[in-house]
Amino acid sequence: MEASMKEKISNKTKEIEAIIYRYLPEETGYQKTVISAMNYTMKAGGKRLRPMLMDETFRMFGGTDRSLIEPFMAAIEMIHTYSLIHDDLPALDNDDYRRGRKTAHVVYGEAMAILAGDSLLNYAFETAAKAFDGTSKDIQTAKAFRILTRKPGIYGMIGGQTADVEGEGHPVDIDTLLFIHENKTGALIECAMMIGAVLAGASKEEVSEIEMIARKIGIAFQIQDDILDLTSTAEELGKPVGSDEKNEKNTYVSLTGLEQSRKDVLRYTKEALASFDGLSCKNDFLRELLLTLSSRKY
Amino acid sequence: MEASMKEKISNKTKEIEAIIYRYLPEETGYQKTVISAMNYTMKAGGKRLRPMLMDETFRMFGGTDRSLIEPFMAAIEMIHTYSLIHDDLPALDNDDYRRGRKTAHVVYGEAMAILAGDSLLNYAFETAAKAFDGTSKDIQTAKAFRILTRKPGIYGMIGGQTADVEGEGHPVDIDTLLFIHENKTGALIECAMMIGAVLAGASKEEVSEIEMIARKIGIAFQIQDDILDLTSTAEELGKPVGSDEKNEKNTYVSLTGLEQSRKDVLRYTKEALASFDGLSCKNDFLRELLLTLSSRKY
Repeated sequence: MEASMKEKISNKTKEIEAIIYRYLPEETGYQKTVISAMNYTMKAGGKRLRPMLMDETFRMFGGTDRSLIEPFMAAIEMIHTYSLIHDDLPALDNDDYRRGRKTAHVVYGEAMAILAGDSLLNYAFETAAKAFDGTSKDIQTAKAFRILTRKPGIYGMIGGQTADVEGEGHPVDIDTLLFIHENKTGALIECAMMIGAVLAGASKEEVSEIEMIARKIGIAFQIQDDILDLTSTAEELGKPVGSDEKNEKNTYVSLTGLEQSRKDVLRYTKEALASFDGLSCKNDFLRELLLTLSSRKY
Repeated sequence: MEASMKEKISNKTKEIEAIIYRYLPEETGYQKTVISAMNYTMKAGGKRLRPMLMDETFRMFGGTDRSLIEPFMAAIEMIHTYSLIHDDLPALDNDDYRRGRKTAHVVYGEAMAILAGDSLLNYAFETAAKAFDGTSKDIQTAKAFRILTRKPGIYGMIGGQTADVEGEGHPVDIDTLLFIHENKTGALIECAMMIGAVLAGASKEEVSEIEMIARKIGIAFQIQDDILDLTSTAEELGKPVGSDEKNEKNTYVSLTGLEQSRKDVLRYTKEALASFDGLSCKNDFLRELLLTLSSRKY
């Protein structure tokens, strides 16, 4: 990635964080502890990729109403964050650290971490519901809401998560692995970009096209993740490498080999970008961002 | 409770179960296990009180569109059920049995029980979102949605749950306990009745009135629960008694005494029914049901 793109992303991340932070609940009242645990994890950093993809897709299709898109941007980051809190729990991945910070259950205890995850998932929908304003715009917002409720659920992210948990410790076939990658990682990327398109008033066909583009980028992103876990140094990646092997995770690399994996990342990326270039509207930053995601080095 | 009322409730429960079951996801695909865990717990019985209160409030205010109310009835039972699955987890109440059946984490393991709870919460919103139909009715449905996203969250049920978890093992004051009772139990009762009213087209004032009635019934219901845990036999209650004392739970009885608790149940119930009788529309079964809830013997 060239330096200017890195800087552009970093600036966007800051802008998006400022937006998201405005939607975080105040740490007060009898429920203060669970809110602290929510906010602690929401403030743990990261590129804010999902709200970034949502916002850029919204802009590409000519969306301008910030009161519509911003609650959904905060909501999708809350959903992503709840999934991290629950993933890190002792009964699941049992991770004590994430991005160099102690995870929620280490700081707040397991009971509070479970409740904080539940709270963030629930609060995501409560936050997105702020976009309803009692006018006929609600018809369009409801469409975005349907996507926000579907993609993170059993027919999306949690579906992938379930198959992943069940697949641990024994080999799975390539179809199962693709299902996991498409859903565990891909579903929220699809969700983000589709909502951006819907809220900007994109046509049904355009939203379908965006879904397909997002799916391919999501798969490429996840295969690249598997590659990096094997080939990067811990320093480059900013987290321990080789953890997939250690945890006996099925990865695209372990099933198809490194050579084939690299080829497939390229193929999925190319296909996604070809569809993207066929859209009637443009967003050069978004194009570059999609390319960066699937060819990243860390 | 007179025999005929018991029978009426039992019949309504069966009708509601038939409705709810239609909204349960099919146990198929790579995510089959988590769906089985969801459905296992959804099918564990119970009176289906929350959807019953929702439906009866809807009918009272003249609601007739079943495609509007039924997704929300299923949704609120899913939210109630997810809260039971997560409550029963080892890190929270650590209960291996509920209503004589093994709890989800005992049957499916802890990881899958966490995911099943997450799935049910998410699927509740996905299910309620089926009520959106792309017409101007969506404006009204959106109002119900805002209630469905708020009352189970940090400013409702989870808020109460947080204070309850933090209060265990040491005495809390009566204000904290009322906060817990109002939110942990009361919030979903308020949620149910308010959504019934909103979807039937009740006025803002009527919805506020319903919220107040539901709050009082919720508190009376929970105080009665504390009383029964202390005074019933296990046979009458169908579950172990004295569990609050064993778990060092703060209860209304331990804070105010049995005499005062009984008086307060009566007072809250009377106030709620007086407001109920002041409404411009009637539902005799719902009135009887509210009375039954707070003066139940089991």
